[in-house]
Amino acid sequence: MTLRVGLIGCGVMGADHARILRSDTPGARLAGVYDADGARAGAIAGEAKGVRIFDAARELIVDPEIEAVVIASPDQTHAELVIACIEAGKPALCEKPLAATLAECRAVMSAEVKAGRRLAQVGFMRRFDPGYRAMKKAALAGEAGRPLFLHCVHRNAVAPDYITSDLVIANSAVHEFDIARFLLGEEFAAVSVYSARASRHAEARRPQFVVLETASGVIVTVEAYLDAHYGYDVQAELVCENGAIFLSPNRPLASRFQGRDGTDVERDWRARFADAYRIQLKEWVASIAGGPTVGASAWDGYAASAIAAAALEALARGARTAVDLGAKPAFYS
Amino acid sequence: MTLRVGLIGCGVMGADHARILRSDTPGARLAGVYDADGARAGAIAGEAKGVRIFDAARELIVDPEIEAVVIASPDQTHAELVIACIEAGKPALCEKPLAATLAECRAVMSAEVKAGRRLAQVGFMRRFDPGYRAMKKAALAGEAGRPLFLHCVHRNAVAPDYITSDLVIANSAVHEFDIARFLLGEEFAAVSVYSARASRHAEARRPQFVVLETASGVIVTVEAYLDAHYGYDVQAELVCENGAIFLSPNRPLASRFQGRDGTDVERDWRARFADAYRIQLKEWVASIAGGPTVGASAWDGYAASAIAAAALEALARGARTAVDLGAKPAFYS
Amino acid sequence: MTLRVGLIGCGVMGADHARILRSDTPGARLAGVYDADGARAGAIAGEAKGVRIFDAARELIVDPEIEAVVIASPDQTHAELVIACIEAGKPALCEKPLAATLAECRAVMSAEVKAGRRLAQVGFMRRFDPGYRAMKKAALAGEAGRPLFLHCVHRNAVAPDYITSDLVIANSAVHEFDIARFLLGEEFAAVSVYSARASRHAEARRPQFVVLETASGVIVTVEAYLDAHYGYDVQAELVCENGAIFLSPNRPLASRFQGRDGTDVERDWRARFADAYRIQLKEWVASIAGGPTVGASAWDGYAASAIAAAALEALARGARTAVDLGAKPAFYS
Amino acid sequence: MTLRVGLIGCGVMGADHARILRSDTPGARLAGVYDADGARAGAIAGEAKGVRIFDAARELIVDPEIEAVVIASPDQTHAELVIACIEAGKPALCEKPLAATLAECRAVMSAEVKAGRRLAQVGFMRRFDPGYRAMKKAALAGEAGRPLFLHCVHRNAVAPDYITSDLVIANSAVHEFDIARFLLGEEFAAVSVYSARASRHAEARRPQFVVLETASGVIVTVEAYLDAHYGYDVQAELVCENGAIFLSPNRPLASRFQGRDGTDVERDWRARFADAYRIQLKEWVASIAGGPTVGASAWDGYAASAIAAAALEALARGARTAVDLGAKPAFYS
Repeated sequence: MTLRVGLIGCGVMGADHARILRSDTPGARLAGVYDADGARAGAIAGEAKGVRIFDAARELIVDPEIEAVVIASPDQTHAELVIACIEAGKPALCEKPLAATLAECRAVMSAEVKAGRRLAQVGFMRRFDPGYRAMKKAALAGEAGRPLFLHCVHRNAVAPDYITSDLVIANSAVHEFDIARFLLGEEFAAVSVYSARASRHAEARRPQFVVLETASGVIVTVEAYLDAHYGYDVQAELVCENGAIFLSPNRPLASRFQGRDGTDVERDWRARFADAYRIQLKEWVASIAGGPTVGASAWDGYAASAIAAAALEALARGARTAVDLGAKPAFYS
Repeated sequence: MTLRVGLIGCGVMGADHARILRSDTPGARLAGVYDADGARAGAIAGEAKGVRIFDAARELIVDPEIEAVVIASPDQTHAELVIACIEAGKPALCEKPLAATLAECRAVMSAEVKAGRRLAQVGFMRRFDPGYRAMKKAALAGEAGRPLFLHCVHRNAVAPDYITSDLVIANSAVHEFDIARFLLGEEFAAVSVYSARASRHAEARRPQFVVLETASGVIVTVEAYLDAHYGYDVQAELVCENGAIFLSPNRPLASRFQGRDGTDVERDWRARFADAYRIQLKEWVASIAGGPTVGASAWDGYAASAIAAAALEALARGARTAVDLGAKPAFYS
Repeated sequence: MTLRVGLIGCGVMGADHARILRSDTPGARLAGVYDADGARAGAIAGEAKGVRIFDAARELIVDPEIEAVVIASPDQTHAELVIACIEAGKPALCEKPLAATLAECRAVMSAEVKAGRRLAQVGFMRRFDPGYRAMKKAALAGEAGRPLFLHCVHRNAVAPDYITSDLVIANSAVHEFDIARFLLGEEFAAVSVYSARASRHAEARRPQFVVLETASGVIVTVEAYLDAHYGYDVQAELVCENGAIFLSPNRPLASRFQGRDGTDVERDWRARFADAYRIQLKEWVASIAGGPTVGASAWDGYAASAIAAAALEALARGARTAVDLGAKPAFYS
Repeated sequence: MTLRVGLIGCGVMGADHARILRSDTPGARLAGVYDADGARAGAIAGEAKGVRIFDAARELIVDPEIEAVVIASPDQTHAELVIACIEAGKPALCEKPLAATLAECRAVMSAEVKAGRRLAQVGFMRRFDPGYRAMKKAALAGEAGRPLFLHCVHRNAVAPDYITSDLVIANSAVHEFDIARFLLGEEFAAVSVYSARASRHAEARRPQFVVLETASGVIVTVEAYLDAHYGYDVQAELVCENGAIFLSPNRPLASRFQGRDGTDVERDWRARFADAYRIQLKEWVASIAGGPTVGASAWDGYAASAIAAAALEALARGARTAVDLGAKPAFYS
């Protein structure tokens, strides 16, 4: 009864998934790995017993011993691999983005509709974070009244050099686009983008500020600054008619030293969202065993990418731009 | 050596100024009052000895016994009264706005330039708030690096019925426009406005979200929601290259009751900015006695109003709108 | 390779352990249950497949299919059951207290020494709480200097009627005695107790304040108030030569409603220490598979009970009382 | 109508009082100064106009131009100077302690009783701190239920070398004794003291922990650690039947830098209690003009010293010691 999981991509994120499967996910075990770099695959395979190393991603996907697949390979491979999983009838948990282009996103959805089963889940792990979950629960409880604003902040301590101004939106702000849809349960109608001057830490990319408007009139704002230096910092405040609900820093220890009273800021998203990653895998495994499906669907993955595309258009045009997702397939309702 | 201060306007704010003069402002005393409602003037005059009641604002201004004037009368009277003070050679501390129109703002500046002395100060009291002051000091200290974003939140618990969507900007967000200029020491180049849906608490006005851009590329955001129900809440976060600096709630008492752990939110701006009002009067009096001038000048008052006017134009047009203050008179440099 | 765990005692805590084994503990599964109330045992057995219901605790312990045992039965049964596990050569995780009397604690240690293996772990789950762990790590890092004070607060929202003034110490403060030993790595030399007046919520028991002194001169204080009404609240502040380290409330969500700004207090220890219980079982299972042993040993269980006994003597005498644990068996060094 | 105040003692605290009188205390002005060090007296006199320099403290006290006296001279001079003020019929605000010995405290009370007027106020400035005031108000409001515990923490960043273990109690913890009496409105019945080991920052004095019991059964605890290194930190938590009320750090600015999220700790008591010192002088002046008397009386000054004496006896004896203030003169009821 233990789900045999295959892992494609054994980099930092893949290694984390393997560790979580091993130490925190009852009902599942890592049964096979593939990575273009065989040494990385071997290293992860060696951490547990009975993990096969595959020579190709597709071999892993179609192997009868593999029952479900975690995809943590480079972004441009995602769509093809997810579609292969769908065609093989195997549930796939794919790191975001679902695909590198909107056309590929649509191809994944088509494959899934054709298969007639929800098999793809996008790794927007924040949907499993206790803070965002409690925020959604509190918002739905009704006491707060209807939402009016959602303010999101996304700051990384440092970012790699290849991150351009566009990728500040497509790579980072896209997390906020997804979580805003999750929290509000509503689609966006328009998007505007404002670029701040570049930080001296990274003169080639500009911090971005995105304003999104939902059809019903909720304003969602996203600050994305990837060179914040002081640490990794994600904030969210949902302003409703009767009150405001916001993420609390949620750190277990505080201290007073050298004239300062406070807490340590997390260095990166893996520390900040450790619980979210753990719960994501646990609930994904449970959902395959028949539990409720709670993660981001292929439609959600497409929507996040489509909003990012509209934001990039708004950035290029320097003007408010409509967000048009097209008709939502009934399959995803 | 005690400065004899006249007060024009004895409503809520005027009464507060009178109280602060009496109990917290050495070197000054209330010497005369005027209000269109004689009973109100009489009530305040009766709280201390030696306070004359005047029959007209202008009589108070020109009376030789009055050395300086606090103006807390209705907005549309401000410009005329400030100009009268300038012409009488008397320092005036005028509640914001400086004037009801930009033309009147310019008239005040002209009068002051003509007089050749800085006599007008606009009551943007937040410039005296210990939090904003510490924020500016920290920003100027340099360790934080250059500012990139300034996020401002302005929420009232309740607002009077006459506040329209336009007044959400002109009456409330205008405080944020001034404090942003104070903190950044820079003028704005463009403004955009996004309206959220109306709260059910006040269906006739919409919460507003304003995005301002400075010439150097700092993005300033302002949420103004005047029906927040839970209390009066002003937030500010200055995001710089190396770190973020933000107002702390700064409440002296916390408690744990009935399942909740936290602090009480202030009900209105008078409670929240009690220190700012006190220090404003104290430093205004000290500046008249020869100390440094630190409050908002007529130019600052004009600038705040001009930004608000541009924001209203942006709201009406539904598009990003240039902010053009015109040339700054050398007198204000 | 999956550890087959038996559970003795299917009340609230037992049911929690069963749930955690099922959903959060890879490498282990619930294989058998016993409870004096057969219906309770049946209910838990029915939640997973392959769980046998035993007719007697000893049958479960000696059954070859059961490899390790969780004991969550009434306190007075603990020692006997733990000894039976030791004699059967099976690891036992026993809810605190280790035994109902100090003599029984010693009997458990004797059995373990005779067996020559560490098989008993006492369920002082706080040792697995991320906050306390981070506190210990920070203290050991050295930057803080040596500890001088440890201030502990233990408040329950409500307590059952059978809790007497003595049980405030023996049942609740005992958690603080254990965690203080864990944090300081040192034994106590003396204890004093001060009783506050009874709360009107529970006039038959008195809130207690305990002062403990370690041999090296650290003062540990414990407030235990079990009728705090507002929620379950555990605090700890470790004051060192160079700074203070303290538990942060660590709640994921905050809000501003109805004039209050803050977070929700947990209602009971299960919500507050959910992570600790989860990690305790996970690491216990891992330790049986050969990982490091990190939980409280039988000696730790004895020490906590012995300190509680000395505290009760101090309470009865109304005077500072020596704590004498006797010689520590070399086996536990 | 301006109160002419004389200042005896022009050290750090005296200079602060002079500054507050000048800049924040309407209705009063500094009219005369005395210090054993004439240069110090001259420096302060030079900061304002019309300040006379006296050659002796008694000359200042009896001078007809001086209407009220602030005493900030060395502790051993306090009683004599306060008595001189009483005999001259002049209100005196005396820095704590009221006197160097209990006998002298009683002499001050006798002088006051004989004079038939309350003229002495002891500078326990915390009674004017907005946090403690809000705490008392909240406690009296009744919603919290009766107090059960009051936990006080008193930490200095550094202390001068002359501070012995005894002075940790007599100089510092005495502030807590007074504020506990202020908050609880009740006298103490017993006191116990526990000494922690010395910090390496100051091996000649030991941090102290004091447990006080009121007649009605409230337990008050005081940690006094004067070499805390990280800053000046005063904490207070009042635990009542229904909830807990505690001082909030109350700092206007927070920041996130270099991996830390939090606020700056004050360096010393003058920064932490700046508002308290300001309000103390303001209300003292107002009380002389006929307002209510709210500061610590001679009885309060005596009580704090008597409790400190009992605590020192408890420290010396190593045992719980009765606190006996003797009968309270009806004059002070």
